[in-house]
Amino acid sequence: MVEHMKWWGWGRESVSFSHGDKPDLAPFVRTHIGLDITRPPAQPPAFADLAIPAPTLPEPLRAALVAAVGAEHVHTDAHDRVVHAYGKSLRDLVRIRNADLGRLPDAVVYPDGEQAVRAVLAAALDADAVVIPFGGGTNISGSLEAPRDETRPVLSVDLGRLDRVLEIDADARLARIQAGALGPHLEEQLNAQGWTLGHFPDSFSHSTLGGWIATRSSGMQSDKYGDIAEITRAVRVVTPAGILATRPVPSQSTGPSVREMILGSEGRLGIITEATVQVHRVAEERVILGYFFPTWDDALVALRQIAESEASPTVTRVSDANETRFSFATRKKGSLATGLVSAGLKQYLRRVRNYDLDQMCLSFIGFEGTPAHVKAQRKIVGEIVGRHGGICVGTGPGQLYDQKKFDTPYIRDFLLGQGAVADVSETSASWSQLAPLYRGVVARANKAFAEIGVDGWIMCHLSHSYHSGACLYFTFAYESPATLAAIEGYDTVKSAIQQGFLDLAGTLSHHHAVGLEHASWLGDDISPAGVHLLSVLFDGIDPGHNLNPGKIIPGAGAGAGAGAGGSAKDGGLTGDGGSAADGEYTAG
Amino acid sequence: MVEHMKWWGWGRESVSFSHGDKPDLAPFVRTHIGLDITRPPAQPPAFADLAIPAPTLPEPLRAALVAAVGAEHVHTDAHDRVVHAYGKSLRDLVRIRNADLGRLPDAVVYPDGEQAVRAVLAAALDADAVVIPFGGGTNISGSLEAPRDETRPVLSVDLGRLDRVLEIDADARLARIQAGALGPHLEEQLNAQGWTLGHFPDSFSHSTLGGWIATRSSGMQSDKYGDIAEITRAVRVVTPAGILATRPVPSQSTGPSVREMILGSEGRLGIITEATVQVHRVAEERVILGYFFPTWDDALVALRQIAESEASPTVTRVSDANETRFSFATRKKGSLATGLVSAGLKQYLRRVRNYDLDQMCLSFIGFEGTPAHVKAQRKIVGEIVGRHGGICVGTGPGQLYDQKKFDTPYIRDFLLGQGAVADVSETSASWSQLAPLYRGVVARANKAFAEIGVDGWIMCHLSHSYHSGACLYFTFAYESPATLAAIEGYDTVKSAIQQGFLDLAGTLSHHHAVGLEHASWLGDDISPAGVHLLSVLFDGIDPGHNLNPGKIIPGAGAGAGAGAGGSAKDGGLTGDGGSAADGEYTAG
Repeated sequence: MVEHMKWWGWGRESVSFSHGDKPDLAPFVRTHIGLDITRPPAQPPAFADLAIPAPTLPEPLRAALVAAVGAEHVHTDAHDRVVHAYGKSLRDLVRIRNADLGRLPDAVVYPDGEQAVRAVLAAALDADAVVIPFGGGTNISGSLEAPRDETRPVLSVDLGRLDRVLEIDADARLARIQAGALGPHLEEQLNAQGWTLGHFPDSFSHSTLGGWIATRSSGMQSDKYGDIAEITRAVRVVTPAGILATRPVPSQSTGPSVREMILGSEGRLGIITEATVQVHRVAEERVILGYFFPTWDDALVALRQIAESEASPTVTRVSDANETRFSFATRKKGSLATGLVSAGLKQYLRRVRNYDLDQMCLSFIGFEGTPAHVKAQRKIVGEIVGRHGGICVGTGPGQLYDQKKFDTPYIRDFLLGQGAVADVSETSASWSQLAPLYRGVVARANKAFAEIGVDGWIMCHLSHSYHSGACLYFTFAYESPATLAAIEGYDTVKSAIQQGFLDLAGTLSHHHAVGLEHASWLGDDISPAGVHLLSVLFDGIDPGHNLNPGKIIPGAGAGAGAGAGGSAKDGGLTGDGGSAADGEYTAG
Repeated sequence: MVEHMKWWGWGRESVSFSHGDKPDLAPFVRTHIGLDITRPPAQPPAFADLAIPAPTLPEPLRAALVAAVGAEHVHTDAHDRVVHAYGKSLRDLVRIRNADLGRLPDAVVYPDGEQAVRAVLAAALDADAVVIPFGGGTNISGSLEAPRDETRPVLSVDLGRLDRVLEIDADARLARIQAGALGPHLEEQLNAQGWTLGHFPDSFSHSTLGGWIATRSSGMQSDKYGDIAEITRAVRVVTPAGILATRPVPSQSTGPSVREMILGSEGRLGIITEATVQVHRVAEERVILGYFFPTWDDALVALRQIAESEASPTVTRVSDANETRFSFATRKKGSLATGLVSAGLKQYLRRVRNYDLDQMCLSFIGFEGTPAHVKAQRKIVGEIVGRHGGICVGTGPGQLYDQKKFDTPYIRDFLLGQGAVADVSETSASWSQLAPLYRGVVARANKAFAEIGVDGWIMCHLSHSYHSGACLYFTFAYESPATLAAIEGYDTVKSAIQQGFLDLAGTLSHHHAVGLEHASWLGDDISPAGVHLLSVLFDGIDPGHNLNPGKIIPGAGAGAGAGAGGSAKDGGLTGDGGSAADGEYTAG
């Protein structure tokens, strides 16, 4: 039995965010966005009140699916269809709270292996059905829904039964793992033999290996373990042209990398069934230290210098002043974090270190390895932090962060219930662009808040460091009823932030994929000719647009790729579109 | 003025390999392949004796090229056409020595920037000409020649005038560099400001940034600096659909990576004009240490453990016993390397360490960074080496290796002149597969030598280490006249080795690309469905097959991609080819 998240929100039925044990939170929220979170929350609709259209599953397709996976694994019940209707974007949460279910899948199919996936895809293509692969359902970019006006049968292919670690090669430090394995489940299986994948996205508890690959995911310890693109050494994918299987070799020079084409493909090239991934021995010592910096600018320079140094931390994270203050506001009574901002420490920072407490920034930097290695890393990092006015505040805050890191997504549901919209948007940029990008994005968000007439809040953290730059992860919130009409205001704010990324040398997404949410910016990011490359790839592999249509590049039906084709024409070499005219190389 | 290598062989006119200063080499070669290298060498043909067909360059095309780059940069002279006819594969060297020039380009064009490249490509597509981008001309996989039966005009587009480092962003540690910059020239420009790219393939002296990207190159210090695929953070490419430009962001989740599609594309998607690459401050200390291991198996285990350790060397290289003996045989009289195998050391190794001197393996491991960092790395590596019976022999051998590392390619010309065929073949595999792959490939090569009736020699080194595996680089040689007929025997040996790679869990190439030489194995490596992905990409971008046709995937003319299409059909999901039938989504 495959477990799913709440049909109406994030995570387990039994878990939710609450403010009761966080005495500073309600005043903080009231001050900054004018919202009273102590009011009784609005409840999500009752499932029984949803208007659920009957599925339209042509009998030959149903029979073929039953033949492929067995009758008990072809679900057409209302609950399963609703669970698979959307991911968990803010837009998804608002729509489902308003019983706007979009184009529900007609059936949810649970294959148990590659052959079953192959049979499902063959049946779907034979019947001209739409196929949407589904991992844990955590996607926040609109990658999991069918086009609202889709007239063909829609199948959600849930990979949840493909949940096993198949093999660990200890010498090669590679594991073969099925695509549907959830984070905690695959880590358990690896940990049992002393290994870890080291991939811990915020969505970890409810997302899968296949989903990480299909969206080019990044995790909290990717500084050390690499993004999923590095971790994934080989893939097996059921495509319309058969099984795509690459070899788990460490590096190769065999034309454009087809492994890399699967990474980020969001179901448009096929269904990922398995991957061979790098694993590591569980580290002997693991520590996450808290640091304070006097200002965000100091912190950015320090983190850049850490990236340039010979240290190789597992986690490099720093919150801006707003997010730091939010962290303080969410500390629990009597928790480890209380010490973090004890009166004594405050006084020391203000009087001795000349900190402006409203500007200071909380940072977490993690280290793993042998005690000697950890010690050497800490020393290098400590010196750099010190040079920029920072101080170490020990392991307490880091432990707390480490324990609570996967709970953040519950907050959006809590706030929606209280009458506020909150969401995230992330990008990456080179070190030299980070500070202006940050300032510009904050300014644009504030302008957008003013435009829609709200007291908005925006905060940010640097979440991953690389040789040449870092990821900036923004969170914003403002008071708003969770109605469908609220989506317009949300779009104004979200668009202002995204456009800021693109105007200020960032990327449209560092690790949240394209889906529908970001598709309109893709050409600004990878250029129209880049979109054209993707377009010919998708159209070539899937001329009927049966594979998760409309994601990454919005298509206008089979053989279209209209946006991209148009761009290619506009940007074509000859100006008259002679050599690159739309439609010349996409067949209908 | 763009400088070129010898039209008939590797490198500068003034440089060649000789045995005179290496007293042990002639006896060594005589013993192992029965060849007397002290005989006067056969000379390459005189240029004047070559039969060079007149170019066929339609007047409108010539006029358009002149308009694009200026008359002085459209070359149709015999020498320039011959220089651009081939790369420097063994097959190329044999053919050119036998005045077999293949399908010469009709013109060589030297654009000086992106706009000129764009105009050249537009002119070529308008005239239905073939376009082959040319960097330094070092390719050994057949990536630079036109199909022998090509009836359309053929243009070699030489990027040699695009040779500048345009910009260095010190904070982001990124440099924008033109694609035609040769290794030494770009390093000079970077070094002048205290930076290095850290990319040093064997071909370094004569290869270009664009060529490295187009073939997914790897260098001698890639353990630290990364393969070119990691180093390259953004590309600018002139494609038929306009300028493809990606952003130099450190990581992104924007669909399948178009940057990665350009890496390894060998001119099939367009012409790379510029890249933004990671650069590093020149290291404070740099040392390459020599080590001996008692056996190859000991060495492989030690190098795996080094990869697993917390050390991060810049170079990890170990030669098998045969290559170690070859190294000894090529030492110069009175050189630093003499001490390497002094009588005293030999005696110590044999008597005290119980080495069988015929089995021992020479290793080079490099370290860079601050003195403290280098010291810590050396300590970790030294302990691992010691556990496997290895000993450190100091910096002498490493210095020698470092000085001579780019001279190796000259040996093939020398041997051809003396009547022997010598070539290389490299692969990568996971750590657990390396030992059986090595044994199997050596056995197959020896079987192939027997088959063609020669005393062959094969030797190998591990050249790069990764988390999950390593690159094995084989060199083989045997006595053979350098006639066209000799190619058949060469193909027997080379094919046996390549087939060994594929049968024994390796890849067809770690860093030498696909070109024509490896194309027939591509489906075995990345699966027929993988080839199909590449096929739809190439056909979609270049329906007329004007861009370096036939490389990576042999095509049967416009709209074909016959091999791949066929595979996709065979391997298709439905069996009847209904959803993935050949030709359905490629337009003619």
